[in-house]
Amino acid sequence: MKIGIFDSGIGGLTVFREISKRLPSFELIYLGDTARLPYGIKSKKTVNKYSDNNVRFLKSLGCEIIVIACNTASSYSTDLLKRKYKFPIFDVLSAGVAASLESEAKRIGVIGTSSTIESNTYQRTLKKRKKSIKIIAKACPMLVPIIEQGLAKENYSKIIIKNNLALLKKSKVEALILGCTHYPLIKNEIKKFLGPRVTLVDSAEEISKSLFKYLKTNHPKEFTKYKKKRRIYVTDKSSYFERASKKIFKNIEVEIKLVDIK
Amino acid sequence: MKIGIFDSGIGGLTVFREISKRLPSFELIYLGDTARLPYGIKSKKTVNKYSDNNVRFLKSLGCEIIVIACNTASSYSTDLLKRKYKFPIFDVLSAGVAASLESEAKRIGVIGTSSTIESNTYQRTLKKRKKSIKIIAKACPMLVPIIEQGLAKENYSKIIIKNNLALLKKSKVEALILGCTHYPLIKNEIKKFLGPRVTLVDSAEEISKSLFKYLKTNHPKEFTKYKKKRRIYVTDKSSYFERASKKIFKNIEVEIKLVDIK
Repeated sequence: MKIGIFDSGIGGLTVFREISKRLPSFELIYLGDTARLPYGIKSKKTVNKYSDNNVRFLKSLGCEIIVIACNTASSYSTDLLKRKYKFPIFDVLSAGVAASLESEAKRIGVIGTSSTIESNTYQRTLKKRKKSIKIIAKACPMLVPIIEQGLAKENYSKIIIKNNLALLKKSKVEALILGCTHYPLIKNEIKKFLGPRVTLVDSAEEISKSLFKYLKTNHPKEFTKYKKKRRIYVTDKSSYFERASKKIFKNIEVEIKLVDIK
Repeated sequence: MKIGIFDSGIGGLTVFREISKRLPSFELIYLGDTARLPYGIKSKKTVNKYSDNNVRFLKSLGCEIIVIACNTASSYSTDLLKRKYKFPIFDVLSAGVAASLESEAKRIGVIGTSSTIESNTYQRTLKKRKKSIKIIAKACPMLVPIIEQGLAKENYSKIIIKNNLALLKKSKVEALILGCTHYPLIKNEIKKFLGPRVTLVDSAEEISKSLFKYLKTNHPKEFTKYKKKRRIYVTDKSSYFERASKKIFKNIEVEIKLVDIK
């Protein structure tokens, strides 16, 4: 059984990595739409079109389960894709929301790119699931650049992290949804600032747990001792991409192949 | 006579604005390829394809002169476009290089996105034009995010600017090429840090001067007292785009229209 994972770029490799660890006997295909990234600053219409292209490509390679490893695509395109394609679709947003509610926190923080926070989807979905919850949402647009540039350890990055998270600390959140696939890469820095009592909800971890559960119930025979193939495709391969992926993923051992999905 | 200007996004509006001021009697059409921005982190092949799409679109609207207001496209695609299309093509990179050499500076600094600096095009072009020149090039990847997010006045942004430009100050550059269309928007902050003796080369200003000179010689009759139309097209219109353009351009009085160029 093949699982297809897509993201606008390489951030979703945090999700790929978690699923890969937890489900060694399932074949994985990752698609990073690097020719058209980032999705976060584009309109719903455009993101829907790109998401559909991505799923069509993964389907053409035989994937029967789709994981949306991109917060913007999760927020904009999940319903559309579920209607159009008949196979199970897992998305980081739903996984993050479910896990934050399971933590039983009464004050939940959400951080993400400007578009994720402004789309209001996390906030709306949380409220729908549990009305009494207090939500503190904060856009952190500078975190992706410092992660992609490998600058998270710089002094000014510490100031940016502090500045971006001050409101959440002040609001005494008990759980914080890391609403962008890049953020797990600076989990330690975030934890250090917010303190050990705040539960950090890492969608990469959560989605791989839900997927595991689903597959255990529906495809138990696929859990074998054999390790299955992993493939990574990107729609554009630039020197920036090579550098950033090396900076943020020290040991992705899978060859990354260029593909034209149109 | 219609002049077509294109950029990957809205940064090129700094160029549009300068040309608009200097050439009121020429019709201007701006195209921002916001659906596929940024170009700076994509491969040459991909950028060439996008640049070609953009010129084809501008040509279809009757443009007879093209201005490449994007540093990445200037660096990757100028030669290709000049071969393919028969009309005059002006690019920010050549304009910046020419102006920095005219300043008679012996030590020239260049700042840009990582891809601009790593492509080595500014450095190579400068060296080719004047061998004795000393070039100090520095990638400043964090400047675009702070400008687009409207964070240039934040305390940490001052630290980032200082940190990014320290090498240039230490190297005692006499002229500095602002090798990214966004940078003119923080010219004052840069000037403040480097001091008044450093000539800042603003490609937006320079390209509008070269264009003026070219048109005065080749199309003198088009200089009339009549103001001609300005149009701005973008390939995607998102809330991020609306916000960022408001943050960085307080008074663009032209309506921005969405267009599908494929």
